Amino acid sequence: MNGAHAIMAALRDAGIRVCFVNPGTSELHLVSALERTADLRAILCLFEGVATGAADGFARMAGVPAATVLHQGAGLAYGLANLHNAGRAASPVVNVIGDGATTLRGLSAPLESDVAALAAPMSSWVHTVGDPSHAGADAAAAVAAAKGPPAGVATLIVPADMAWSPNGRPAPPASAGPRPGRAPEPSAIGPGTTLLLGGAALRARGLAAADRLAQATRARILAEPFPGRLEQGAGVPPIKRLSADPDTASRQLAGSRKLVLVDAAPPVRAFAEPDTSAVLTPAGCTVEHLDGDVLAGLEELAARLAPQRQGRAQQPIGPTAIADAPLTADGVAQVAGALLPEGAIVVDEANTSSVALPCGTARHDLLTNPGFAIGLGMPLAIGAALACPDRPVICLEADGSAMYTPSALWTQARERLNITTIVLVNRGYAILRKARQRLPGETGASPLFDLSNPDLDFVALAAAMGVPGHRAISTADLAARLTHALARPGPHLIEAIVPPRF
Amino acid sequence: MNGAHAIMAALRDAGIRVCFVNPGTSELHLVSALERTADLRAILCLFEGVATGAADGFARMAGVPAATVLHQGAGLAYGLANLHNAGRAASPVVNVIGDGATTLRGLSAPLESDVAALAAPMSSWVHTVGDPSHAGADAAAAVAAAKGPPAGVATLIVPADMAWSPNGRPAPPASAGPRPGRAPEPSAIGPGTTLLLGGAALRARGLAAADRLAQATRARILAEPFPGRLEQGAGVPPIKRLSADPDTASRQLAGSRKLVLVDAAPPVRAFAEPDTSAVLTPAGCTVEHLDGDVLAGLEELAARLAPQRQGRAQQPIGPTAIADAPLTADGVAQVAGALLPEGAIVVDEANTSSVALPCGTARHDLLTNPGFAIGLGMPLAIGAALACPDRPVICLEADGSAMYTPSALWTQARERLNITTIVLVNRGYAILRKARQRLPGETGASPLFDLSNPDLDFVALAAAMGVPGHRAISTADLAARLTHALARPGPHLIEAIVPPRF
Repeated sequence: MNGAHAIMAALRDAGIRVCFVNPGTSELHLVSALERTADLRAILCLFEGVATGAADGFARMAGVPAATVLHQGAGLAYGLANLHNAGRAASPVVNVIGDGATTLRGLSAPLESDVAALAAPMSSWVHTVGDPSHAGADAAAAVAAAKGPPAGVATLIVPADMAWSPNGRPAPPASAGPRPGRAPEPSAIGPGTTLLLGGAALRARGLAAADRLAQATRARILAEPFPGRLEQGAGVPPIKRLSADPDTASRQLAGSRKLVLVDAAPPVRAFAEPDTSAVLTPAGCTVEHLDGDVLAGLEELAARLAPQRQGRAQQPIGPTAIADAPLTADGVAQVAGALLPEGAIVVDEANTSSVALPCGTARHDLLTNPGFAIGLGMPLAIGAALACPDRPVICLEADGSAMYTPSALWTQARERLNITTIVLVNRGYAILRKARQRLPGETGASPLFDLSNPDLDFVALAAAMGVPGHRAISTADLAARLTHALARPGPHLIEAIVPPRF
Repeated sequence: MNGAHAIMAALRDAGIRVCFVNPGTSELHLVSALERTADLRAILCLFEGVATGAADGFARMAGVPAATVLHQGAGLAYGLANLHNAGRAASPVVNVIGDGATTLRGLSAPLESDVAALAAPMSSWVHTVGDPSHAGADAAAAVAAAKGPPAGVATLIVPADMAWSPNGRPAPPASAGPRPGRAPEPSAIGPGTTLLLGGAALRARGLAAADRLAQATRARILAEPFPGRLEQGAGVPPIKRLSADPDTASRQLAGSRKLVLVDAAPPVRAFAEPDTSAVLTPAGCTVEHLDGDVLAGLEELAARLAPQRQGRAQQPIGPTAIADAPLTADGVAQVAGALLPEGAIVVDEANTSSVALPCGTARHDLLTNPGFAIGLGMPLAIGAALACPDRPVICLEADGSAMYTPSALWTQARERLNITTIVLVNRGYAILRKARQRLPGETGASPLFDLSNPDLDFVALAAAMGVPGHRAISTADLAARLTHALARPGPHLIEAIVPPRF
């Protein structure tokens, strides 16, 4: 058994089911081992950012880590932005980086670079295989590190000679970190308390307990602004998200005397502005944490403080007639909400064109981007679709972001994934227009924020990758196209032309 | 004057003429300053890898650094692979990274990352602005560091509050490093000596001197395998490149008793294999260096050792009739060679489909990728076309590599650049097929090396970005399409269907 086979067997034995791969010459032994390891599926991606984003999506929906196989430092570099996003979503991802052989070190071979240094800023665990007889154990340790707690990005660097060496040895799964302890109890919950929910608290069970608490104690509950995975729709308690707009978020938090962070980070501005505080927690508000096993913690609190309460649940909206009108971002949300299939997975990278789906739409999981590095949406959809092949995926994608990882469409076609991508085309970086309008003496207009001249044609882009595409300029168009797409297997793309909201 | 204006004015005063930009919210002040700085042109790219590759191409052809403006760590990360390539080509590039304000540090804002750590592996100089009154001087220092010698990638990190602070101050250009000294003289040159030429030695003047030397002394001359810029064609001495195939390269170097590295790196394998030496210099061969001002060094040697010699020059091939035949990579080289306009710039990222243009074709500059991170070709063409607007650019691109930075086509259309991209479509990662065929017990066949299923449609891809495209399946097709494209301004794309060479 060579080192590469030991690595792939250890990944599989530790629970990895899918590897997203963009191979290079230094990974040939890893590729051969991957192809020969039963129950380990290899998915070809044409760009590393697609592979890392897809691994994130798989992990979010499957609850187990996915792996990537990437090519030396340059390949890793192209995957780093979506690894940053995966880290912010606390998604377990294992990167296997095929590096040049140790015999090439220091010789300035074309692709030589400091892979460990590149990996460190976007990884919670980095290790370079130094002994082929430990390669399998190193891979098992990588999976354990990715699982956590806390879950995160683990990067295993495999020099080619460690992969081809015949001294590989099988390795059992490594033990995960300690189970999270019982959550410490907040000192008191009542009016003036805001519970900010993140991570595991945003699944139906956590939301139900938090909602009971809020109903009984008159505390407020809010979801973190960009959840990795939020369960929504009919049957789930309604919850507002903390706004991405700092002024709105400040109003949402105003009056809080105590902020309880339930698997959530303290609220801060995403971008600073002169003469403003970066921190959004109101002055004088105390901050407590509810970490660890937050589901048990919330349910214990609810049992004690709200014993008689039933959680609320969104009532299904039922069939909705959509008036035909020129398409807008709100119109996209209305149509998508009305037509959403039960159990759908909604990926939202629509950025400024993002609009909340109507309350009471069919039950679904919403995946957003807590890391803000654009180019995540279409790759994330790949991973989610592979993790949940029986659930349709709807990906709401902005035109600017779509141009980061367009080759995700090709992998969607190759794997015949049930993904419908709606690209909201407003022909600009509207978020920059909005932000610059806030600066004194500035306007939002700039040729550098303008994506027209020439107009991008997403129907042609989809066709280039084997994905059938259509353009929609009205709500009726979109409803017809979306109905058509959801009724047929495989990927589809709808180019939704919308006016910019900023 | 705020810090951002001081930076942009300092860049301009130090000789920067073009900034390749993908802006984000933390760069708004930098963008505003850029737009208001006379004689500094901003080129919008839809992806950071396009921006960094374009900066490399501009620097190679203009001989002065280009700048990029990139968004925090994630934006830089997407640009790193082409910065790696720029570093290997010794291209002067200045990155200006707009980072989050210092007031956000440590608060885990969505995009926070360790930008300096990410930049270091692909930069020869990294600095974070810590005092807005020094921001201009820091920018001037960045340009000086990029210029060198040695030339390289300089990365200036600008926290948003350093950009918006009103305390910016103008700064004069910083002094460059010391001029390169006179080249040390090799001990003797004669039969058994091989001069390996790189960098500045690969322009016509250096090639002429080296060729005179070789003619007079019976030394061999070879060019480095992947030159950043190599002058070729009629009127220039012919020179063979060291092969990328290690077996062929070993044969080319066999019998050398002395290797003189003229602005070139020692020859090594790009990828290691079991039981082979990484170093390609023959055993027992001594190695000497001719660095510094290598043009003066070569000319002095030629004046002393070859005083009576004239350099050879490739004779023009003249009009060539191309027989119509199904297209192959060789056929693409024949057609492109026959139709090449005088003064063309040829970008070669055709990888395994790359074939040397015929000897005696029109004089041109050839730009290749010494860093091997794919996705460079189409961005490089942007920079070259902007640096030399009167020279047509022909970009020979592989299908696998093209899918890394496809949005380069959009910037080509937006700027109406005279670039004809010929995508050599062999529907596979042929380099991996070739490499795995060398492994015992392995074949070159793998679904992970296969780019069909579905076939990529590069004509549709070009149309999606506003570039007119056509498909060619025969030499006559290609000749007609290339003639058409070269006769009309703006970008064109030709999808050349070729059988894989491996």
